[in-house]
Amino acid sequence: MKSILLIGQSNMAGRGFIEDVSPIYNEQIHMLRNGRWQMMAEPINPDRHVSGVGPAASFAQAWTEDHPGESIGLIPCAEGGSSIDEWSMDGFLTRHAISEAKFAMETSELAGILWHQGESDSYGERYKTYKDKLLTLFKHLREELKAPDVPIMIGELGHFLGETGFGKSAVEYKQINQVISEVARTEGNCYFVTSKGLTANPDGIHIDALSQRRFGLRYYEAFSKQKHVFDVLDNEHEWMEKAANRELTKNEKIFVQSTKFALGQLSFEEFSINLSNVNESK
Amino acid sequence: MKSILLIGQSNMAGRGFIEDVSPIYNEQIHMLRNGRWQMMAEPINPDRHVSGVGPAASFAQAWTEDHPGESIGLIPCAEGGSSIDEWSMDGFLTRHAISEAKFAMETSELAGILWHQGESDSYGERYKTYKDKLLTLFKHLREELKAPDVPIMIGELGHFLGETGFGKSAVEYKQINQVISEVARTEGNCYFVTSKGLTANPDGIHIDALSQRRFGLRYYEAFSKQKHVFDVLDNEHEWMEKAANRELTKNEKIFVQSTKFALGQLSFEEFSINLSNVNESK
Repeated sequence: MKSILLIGQSNMAGRGFIEDVSPIYNEQIHMLRNGRWQMMAEPINPDRHVSGVGPAASFAQAWTEDHPGESIGLIPCAEGGSSIDEWSMDGFLTRHAISEAKFAMETSELAGILWHQGESDSYGERYKTYKDKLLTLFKHLREELKAPDVPIMIGELGHFLGETGFGKSAVEYKQINQVISEVARTEGNCYFVTSKGLTANPDGIHIDALSQRRFGLRYYEAFSKQKHVFDVLDNEHEWMEKAANRELTKNEKIFVQSTKFALGQLSFEEFSINLSNVNESK
Repeated sequence: MKSILLIGQSNMAGRGFIEDVSPIYNEQIHMLRNGRWQMMAEPINPDRHVSGVGPAASFAQAWTEDHPGESIGLIPCAEGGSSIDEWSMDGFLTRHAISEAKFAMETSELAGILWHQGESDSYGERYKTYKDKLLTLFKHLREELKAPDVPIMIGELGHFLGETGFGKSAVEYKQINQVISEVARTEGNCYFVTSKGLTANPDGIHIDALSQRRFGLRYYEAFSKQKHVFDVLDNEHEWMEKAANRELTKNEKIFVQSTKFALGQLSFEEFSINLSNVNESK
């Protein structure tokens, strides 16, 4: 199995409203829980009780389309509100992410790292020291995880920042984006992922669910083609429609029914009938 | 800060329906996320996307009532469906729980362990080897965490098992409860917590949210009095009513408003007005 480490702050963890997009159920996609793999369901990265849709689900969904019959695992280690200083080598977040990745790597091969962070450093001239800190982190992760060539996909901060709500505080996001772009272009096996056209929740800082689906697709484009993604992809909306209409497998249908039952949305009788129907269908 | 390790299977993780009980917001209660502490909100133990109310929130709430001005942290490591064999010394769950506890113990003192497990071992005469496995686990945890005397509270399996739904498969839960009771009585600093009177979700296996609140209170009774709890507590319903009517602090009110806003239930304008109101009130 291949695995992908998710690190950064809230927009990597995901704050898109879950009810705003079609759910992604896919038995080829797993997420790390208690050091082991579970079938993926959003929220993938439960750093907060308000965690929602991030870029990882559509990234993984796109991956499975290119890898029929194979599995991918997501290692959620993003932390809302974290600054680059909190991702120092000896900080909790970095050490914990390495620890989680090592559990995952007992049963998978680390194939990539998705990074999205910087809103918490978009003020007070922090961009001036951001590059060195980011490069130090990437070097440290690759060393500690013994994955010197693992590709790192670096997402740009939302162009909607600096305008409204909580986003207003991110007055220097353009400078951070400049640094991000520079790091991606100069550092080996690092790829830039544009946030062009993505929109925000009413808080003005968190990428909305629909945009996160598009963002994940762009992260996958960068990963799969090993290239920077500087522009909106042609097929983003078309892909989302196709993904939403994907026919579920039998296991995925059982997963959906089990979810509904576990949340009290079905009686045991209804659940049993639905399960029989799933099992009897081809 | 004191901390509490939560281990076992789904009824420790929590599957009570969140909407069935009054939420517990309390700035003295924290939960471990990414190796650090966050203010607690349910679900505390996100082993599955359907995780809900377990015993930990009311345990911690009761603790804070006895420790004004102090803080407590919850370390969620319970894993739905896990059998005692999956809690072997070299298993993922045990190693991961130790790893999480060690992160927590960098900034807290481990004060107790809450254990609830056994539904997955309530068939096939597994009870015959359960005692040795449980004792081996407890010994190993205390050694690895350098906490030889840390109290372990062991919750009884629900008396509703063996009857309906998924609970039907737990045909030997009484034998497991016998073993649990024996371990609690004979092992040092282990305390038994009865499940008398607790009721289940429609699945017949998961303790419902209201019962989990009561269960947590019993776990706290065992912990705080260092004694077995063999019977229903007199004050369970009264306590729940009192907890539900507790006046929130300013920080807790801000947390509630922030949650609503983060979930898209308030516009930025509404959120700002509500926040002003909180800040202006005493």
